[in-house]
Amino acid sequence: MNESQYSSRLLDNAVCQFATLPGIGRKTALRLVLHLLREDKDDVAQFVEAVRAVRNDIHYCQVCHNVSDTDICEICSNAARNHRLICVVESVRDVMAIENTRQYTGIYHVLGGVISPMDGVGPNDLNIDSLEAKVAAGEADEVILALSTTMEGDTTNYYLYKRIAKYGVPVTTIARGVAVGDELEYADEVTLGRSLVNRIPFDTTLNIR
Amino acid sequence: MNESQYSSRLLDNAVCQFATLPGIGRKTALRLVLHLLREDKDDVAQFVEAVRAVRNDIHYCQVCHNVSDTDICEICSNAARNHRLICVVESVRDVMAIENTRQYTGIYHVLGGVISPMDGVGPNDLNIDSLEAKVAAGEADEVILALSTTMEGDTTNYYLYKRIAKYGVPVTTIARGVAVGDELEYADEVTLGRSLVNRIPFDTTLNIR
Repeated sequence: MNESQYSSRLLDNAVCQFATLPGIGRKTALRLVLHLLREDKDDVAQFVEAVRAVRNDIHYCQVCHNVSDTDICEICSNAARNHRLICVVESVRDVMAIENTRQYTGIYHVLGGVISPMDGVGPNDLNIDSLEAKVAAGEADEVILALSTTMEGDTTNYYLYKRIAKYGVPVTTIARGVAVGDELEYADEVTLGRSLVNRIPFDTTLNIR
Repeated sequence: MNESQYSSRLLDNAVCQFATLPGIGRKTALRLVLHLLREDKDDVAQFVEAVRAVRNDIHYCQVCHNVSDTDICEICSNAARNHRLICVVESVRDVMAIENTRQYTGIYHVLGGVISPMDGVGPNDLNIDSLEAKVAAGEADEVILALSTTMEGDTTNYYLYKRIAKYGVPVTTIARGVAVGDELEYADEVTLGRSLVNRIPFDTTLNIR
């Protein structure tokens, strides 16, 4: 599809804007815009206001850099959580994913990405100084590194370890292994290898479902 | 996913708004919103303005009801086109699809839907009166019905025929048959049957590619 086919510049403009979103091509963008055209003006106004507000009015938690409506997010202001256990994650989505497990009661530290020279992301672009400050101030009993197992994730893990291990805080990473429910024969060699190397004592309680 | 998992009401609100779009679930909506969060404020402002404008400022052509930036769309104001050949389509997307073929030089008439009692759409909800007025005023040499071959499309075709054929204008429908490039053995019976019934004289020029 080329741009000139639309009979309206406004339509074309809206389609171009939607097509900048990840995973949305021009055909899908057109479908979304034509849907909005058929909607009530009030509904579209609500949509527009929600998008405007999420970008302009949202806060980032001053402690963990998670998205929040307030200066300190719900997790960091929750007295029932263990504030001395810090899980370092790449993004807000990882916080949501871990929260969904309902297995973690500590707090988070959102880096805002991983070190990636290819994408021009260096250590200074990430929330690393504030993490080091917390650890240096003796505010953590343990730091859990929960980054992706990509080249960039591993690089960032190593860099973080160098920055915070010198303060004597235990640094751990989340377990890598064969996923629950997966069959061994279909697991890749690296994952299966790691699950063997990092084997743990058999725990009867974990196997009861 | 439930709503309470998001640490921000603004985030949740934006995700809910995106999730109202067709084909966008909550997971995709979250991805889009988090993408917008990382974008420049100016880019998001442009996005918001484009969506606002497309709903509030867009015009519908007074002649054919196509979307347009002006009162008369580019197609209807194009003197090079045959204004006495009217192709009746369901939606703006069909206009774009037919324009893409570069085979049609007449003008359009966008109904805005098809008669569908199940969805509560009756003849009065569609742009039928203005079509009849054009035909009654003797402005058309031929009306081409190019609606979907669904129950609703067929019903609408028949209704339109009843409304306009009495003025003596030739009413045609687009050809249905086996698609170019399709193998006969995979065509469904109805389509193959129609392509036989509606066979046309062999035209050597059409088969040269």
